[in-house]
Amino acid sequence: MTYCVGMLLDEGLVMASDSRTNAGVDHIATYRKMTVWERPGERLLVLLAAGNLAVTQAVVNLLNEGVGEDDRTLDDVDGMFDAARLAGEAVREVYRSDGALLREFGSEFNPSFILGGQFAGRTMRLFQVYAAGNFVEATPETPFFQIGEIKYGKPILDRALDRATSLTDAVKLALVSMDSTMRSNISVGLPIDLVLCERDACRVKLHRRIEHDDAYFDEISRRWSQALQQAYQHLPDPAW
Amino acid sequence: MTYCVGMLLDEGLVMASDSRTNAGVDHIATYRKMTVWERPGERLLVLLAAGNLAVTQAVVNLLNEGVGEDDRTLDDVDGMFDAARLAGEAVREVYRSDGALLREFGSEFNPSFILGGQFAGRTMRLFQVYAAGNFVEATPETPFFQIGEIKYGKPILDRALDRATSLTDAVKLALVSMDSTMRSNISVGLPIDLVLCERDACRVKLHRRIEHDDAYFDEISRRWSQALQQAYQHLPDPAW
Repeated sequence: MTYCVGMLLDEGLVMASDSRTNAGVDHIATYRKMTVWERPGERLLVLLAAGNLAVTQAVVNLLNEGVGEDDRTLDDVDGMFDAARLAGEAVREVYRSDGALLREFGSEFNPSFILGGQFAGRTMRLFQVYAAGNFVEATPETPFFQIGEIKYGKPILDRALDRATSLTDAVKLALVSMDSTMRSNISVGLPIDLVLCERDACRVKLHRRIEHDDAYFDEISRRWSQALQQAYQHLPDPAW
Repeated sequence: MTYCVGMLLDEGLVMASDSRTNAGVDHIATYRKMTVWERPGERLLVLLAAGNLAVTQAVVNLLNEGVGEDDRTLDDVDGMFDAARLAGEAVREVYRSDGALLREFGSEFNPSFILGGQFAGRTMRLFQVYAAGNFVEATPETPFFQIGEIKYGKPILDRALDRATSLTDAVKLALVSMDSTMRSNISVGLPIDLVLCERDACRVKLHRRIEHDDAYFDEISRRWSQALQQAYQHLPDPAW
């Protein structure tokens, strides 16, 4: 299972992914689910992927090697919309080549992607690309997308995240959301890849790989548990 | 959709269910998903149900009217294990009569139940009954069961609920868990049925139907949102 979240805020982008891959309990591996394409100051693209790993890796490979008859790569796109469209075309190309046989072997064709980034002089944008190759864009009212095991980590984002949230607060929310998911679903696991990009910089401000025994993440996890326990204990008692 | 939670604590039982039933956006109704059988001081049984409403109502009807060739009802059982077994048999009887045709019409046979209660002089117990009619029992390490739309409301229970939680605190946690679910999934909705039973009393201590504009529930919901927002803002900033 996978959990990824992408946030598009006034200050910039926060993208986070876990890296647990599993095919049954006896086959658990760690794979990077985040891919970054960066020409600092010129363009930045960050892709998060969930679903069948063979499919999502094939999509990333096509984006590097060439999609369709004219072999277009992410190097050839001229903006975020064009990039999202190419990602959708790559998904459809993999579906045409692998979809039928995957189904014969009882595997679902279920990839999903979050694609965020910016081209110099243009708007920072965030998209979610579906298995059918179509996509939607984040709006000011919906500043985040989640893919994979999304439900456990959603309530805190629904309540606390909005477009004006600072990058620092968004990092805390992403880690709390990730921690809630990992606690409730053991197939989502460390390390976490976390990337921050400031608006208009077109470069990665920070990439952090949070491994086991990361002191800051452990502290967030411990203090969040404490805070939740105190919070509910401070709720008023019912009068009835 | 449905969300129900049952908690077995040192002090007693807390059972809560929403009451939204839907079959598409144009058909939303309110049905009680909680059934209570009580002979005060003698025996108490509380059943929460999720899944296809025709199936879950059929199960409740069989438990009242008679299951199997000998037409046993919940009146005839002599303890909680026997009650859980009868509920499982009722589920199987409905499956045998309706399962094949439901499948032909594209409906899933997906009922699930939480059954809690106590017989005088015996142990208070809590069971989850599956669609196959088999069941599991809550243990000191796993003091709660959820059915239906369980994920949004699970993280707070995973972090804060244990067997020693007081009934009052458990009520707050049940309402917070319910509120988190209703915020993230619009097909789970008010009113909420809430029942409290003290250990060894074999009677309902409190039944509360929480409707729209319930002042206490609104207060819990509002203060919980505030508390979460304050909690994450008080987390330490990363040093990196």
